[in-house]
Amino acid sequence: MDIPNLRWWGWGTLDRSYSLENRPRFWPTLRAWLGLPDDLTERPPVPLESIQLRPSRLDDPVLASLRRLVGEEAVRLDQRARVEHACGKGYRDLVRVRAGYIPNPPDAVVYPADEGQVAAIVAWAADRDILIIPFGGGSTVTGAVEPPPDNRPAISLDLARLDRLVSIDPVSRTARIQAGATGPEVEAQLNAHGFTLGHFPLSFEFSTLGGWIATRGAGQASAGYGKIEHMTQAVQVVTPMGIIETRDVPASATGPSLLDILVGSEGACGVITQATMRICPRPEVQDYRGFLFQHLDNAIAALRDLMQEGPCPTIACLSDPEEAAGLAALAPAYSGLQALIDRAMDRYLTWVGHRMTRGSGLLLLGYDGRPEDVRSRWRRAIPICRDHGGLPLGRGVGESWKRERFALPYLRDTLLSVGILVDTLETATTWSNLLHLYEAMTAAIRAAIRDTGGGPGYVMTRVTHSSPWGAALCTTFLGRQVPGAEIEQWWAVKEAATEAILTAGGTLSHHYGSGRDHARWLREEVGPLGLKTLQAIKATLDPTGIMNPGVLLPLPTPGDRS
Amino acid sequence: MDIPNLRWWGWGTLDRSYSLENRPRFWPTLRAWLGLPDDLTERPPVPLESIQLRPSRLDDPVLASLRRLVGEEAVRLDQRARVEHACGKGYRDLVRVRAGYIPNPPDAVVYPADEGQVAAIVAWAADRDILIIPFGGGSTVTGAVEPPPDNRPAISLDLARLDRLVSIDPVSRTARIQAGATGPEVEAQLNAHGFTLGHFPLSFEFSTLGGWIATRGAGQASAGYGKIEHMTQAVQVVTPMGIIETRDVPASATGPSLLDILVGSEGACGVITQATMRICPRPEVQDYRGFLFQHLDNAIAALRDLMQEGPCPTIACLSDPEEAAGLAALAPAYSGLQALIDRAMDRYLTWVGHRMTRGSGLLLLGYDGRPEDVRSRWRRAIPICRDHGGLPLGRGVGESWKRERFALPYLRDTLLSVGILVDTLETATTWSNLLHLYEAMTAAIRAAIRDTGGGPGYVMTRVTHSSPWGAALCTTFLGRQVPGAEIEQWWAVKEAATEAILTAGGTLSHHYGSGRDHARWLREEVGPLGLKTLQAIKATLDPTGIMNPGVLLPLPTPGDRS
Repeated sequence: MDIPNLRWWGWGTLDRSYSLENRPRFWPTLRAWLGLPDDLTERPPVPLESIQLRPSRLDDPVLASLRRLVGEEAVRLDQRARVEHACGKGYRDLVRVRAGYIPNPPDAVVYPADEGQVAAIVAWAADRDILIIPFGGGSTVTGAVEPPPDNRPAISLDLARLDRLVSIDPVSRTARIQAGATGPEVEAQLNAHGFTLGHFPLSFEFSTLGGWIATRGAGQASAGYGKIEHMTQAVQVVTPMGIIETRDVPASATGPSLLDILVGSEGACGVITQATMRICPRPEVQDYRGFLFQHLDNAIAALRDLMQEGPCPTIACLSDPEEAAGLAALAPAYSGLQALIDRAMDRYLTWVGHRMTRGSGLLLLGYDGRPEDVRSRWRRAIPICRDHGGLPLGRGVGESWKRERFALPYLRDTLLSVGILVDTLETATTWSNLLHLYEAMTAAIRAAIRDTGGGPGYVMTRVTHSSPWGAALCTTFLGRQVPGAEIEQWWAVKEAATEAILTAGGTLSHHYGSGRDHARWLREEVGPLGLKTLQAIKATLDPTGIMNPGVLLPLPTPGDRS
Repeated sequence: MDIPNLRWWGWGTLDRSYSLENRPRFWPTLRAWLGLPDDLTERPPVPLESIQLRPSRLDDPVLASLRRLVGEEAVRLDQRARVEHACGKGYRDLVRVRAGYIPNPPDAVVYPADEGQVAAIVAWAADRDILIIPFGGGSTVTGAVEPPPDNRPAISLDLARLDRLVSIDPVSRTARIQAGATGPEVEAQLNAHGFTLGHFPLSFEFSTLGGWIATRGAGQASAGYGKIEHMTQAVQVVTPMGIIETRDVPASATGPSLLDILVGSEGACGVITQATMRICPRPEVQDYRGFLFQHLDNAIAALRDLMQEGPCPTIACLSDPEEAAGLAALAPAYSGLQALIDRAMDRYLTWVGHRMTRGSGLLLLGYDGRPEDVRSRWRRAIPICRDHGGLPLGRGVGESWKRERFALPYLRDTLLSVGILVDTLETATTWSNLLHLYEAMTAAIRAAIRDTGGGPGYVMTRVTHSSPWGAALCTTFLGRQVPGAEIEQWWAVKEAATEAILTAGGTLSHHYGSGRDHARWLREEVGPLGLKTLQAIKATLDPTGIMNPGVLLPLPTPGDRS
């Protein structure tokens, strides 16, 4: 059913962690960057059993009726289930859950077995004015799976059992897949037929197809495979007003795109239960390499050339000087990567000055495909990188990236445990506006960390999810936590960053989704009339507002800031 | 302002026509196919001045207030303007207008000078409960620019003066363009900067950017450049509730896509006034060639291979045996094309039997780009065609296609004038369902022509607008008109075709749009809840229903069938 052994207080499973043992440069570097004390006190999460949860507000007759719908074992009220489904995996979530502060746990966690049971549960809940929080992998970093402060009881609807490949059409290259399938479940089932979806977000191991679609997600290979909305051909959505099934056709011209209304609906209109996804043959080779550029804008120009003129990479990720230095600080001792980066980076970083936003850039490029195609594309790509002053670092960088591509969220737990503020945010804009947005956003974050008493802070950014017309920026920021005011501090940084993004022409989100955290800015993103339009869509599909209230669209009254 | 010299009763301009002079096979072939009498009587359209139009329902004070907004000359009430804006260019339109039957002409035709005037007119109309029919090039074939039967007066809002390239961003490869620019106006302005939009529908010379976006159109080069929704990055739409301006970013994840709600809105929510379009460098060469396949399904397999595995063509158009025979019948005497087709086609058509739906196929393939890229793509494409039994016909077919790519609608006027039923419809589906849909749809059309007394009829189809996941089918059907019941006959064929399409898993429209003609089937396409959602969007942006009523969404009461 669920993934066993989850870290209810952090990322992933309890049997894994991000080992810092053989990474001698990490702590000294971080200490220097953040102005940390020599002695970091480790604060473990509170014990699970010590958390005081509000008792379930579902009474016995109501629970009995729910159990009749889905079976005895598919309704859980135990402490672990309720805590694991109380929130997502954002910084704000983890700070609260580590401290045992869970004011709005779900009143039950329900595991439907199939689409029919989802429809029955939604009808059952609509009938009783019970809130439904659709739950995929729970990896949201925008607060999108958290029951709101509300007098109505709430159930977390966990789609873990809807994990099957329903059918595959190799001729049309599509597959019908249930929404609760996690990344590994999607890929294993498609791989068995020789196909891949090509969607590999950082949360791949724990997030689900339905979550990707609900949030308009993007994976690390989006340059080659596209964002999830480009891969989604049709969806089935269970709403309180009934089931919507969009037509399974490659394109149509029958008015506003119903598909693009449901993709991105964030559980606020209904529960995505199945989708027809566009699939690709599994690549025979994946050849990923690194390049170092003297200036960030040279690296951006090279990446843009590749996206506009080809050969279009499958994976493209460009680290700014701060992130490149961060990766270098994490490199294992004596690794070829470290040696390379040490030698080259130190030279470049010294030369251009560490804080220059137009400083050097580390570009990871990858091509997937048949061996001869990949070779031919590399033959054309390398001269383009060289033309822009790119220094080939070889496949070592690619191999090390592949090894650690899903591992970094574990490191966040380690940092949180010693009182470090650490979060990631993202946006996107056009190529011509990219450096302007980058500078405005990172400056705002740096200032906010300092102003909130977080010390000098460290802000590192990657250019990712490139297209011919622009790219996304993903920024990780670190600082010293302000004890007792961790959430307020985070909100201050988040607000400063978001306002800088919107002012500088970025979008509120390129692939995390809007969630609860961005709801207050949605009006600015889509305009007052755009907001009314989205509200009208929700009111039509969810007239009593039981679907994930406060997520995507702001609550009628300002939400809490707990 | 407008294109001068328009054929108010037909396609294009009066100085042009489709000459049949040097095409000796055309009439004899058509006579045989349709069972036409030897002597065809030509029925010219009624004289313009003889048409009895209902007097404008706008009284002098109202007209004076409108003239104050836009200037004296931007408000037209003359016979020509009102007739030219009374309907589109579908078969149903032309039959009515040639007969002078125009029951619902616009009460005025207004030509705003800019976006501000559009906003002023929409506010003015909302204030007075006057209907607005947005008008681009008027080339709709779904009844999308026709005032409805309604007690409220209606104005046709012609965007002809909004024809400028507003700005261009060569770095991000986007251009802001006003919605009233026609195809040639869009291309000329982009070409001057070395760019192209790459959107070349059959209506290219007379349709506009706003119309393409409003209908989710597709051009002949959609295989390479995508449909209009793939090219549209942001829009400005003037609605009765205010202006919506979507954020100009390459992608976002902030809920349902507002952009994809407005793209395809068919004037039923507001007037598209500007858009940011994704542009491409103008290709240095365009190398188009023909291939003949022994069986249609071999040709489909070759086309699918190219779309899925590459090299992806810029243009791909596959004619079924009936269309190939139709093209052969139109070929000029002694042309190389005719000789080639004569020789090869006759052999194949005889061999496989003319009526076999799995018969031969004529594939037009084209690659645009830099000379070395185009050569390299042809080097890979030719063996793929050969592997599926494709016989290369050389560039002659491509040249003749280029020459006549926008000319065929003129021929329709010639056919109409001698009492021939002729119309085109289109749909799309997945590759695995393509032949099934093709057979079901064409059989339904053939039967309906026969059953309505249209004689044996002739139905010819092309596979077009291919993607890796499927393709569109565009079908032209011909028969003998039933005098006095031309429209009823056409509706019977349209109904039979549409019901066959929906039953066989096709979409109501892939690129013509929904318009007035498809409104009654929209519920079946998007489902009852999908329809409610689209209605809620319209009700939010156009609460009093003044925007293009009856287009896209069915009127509350069943519309007329005039």
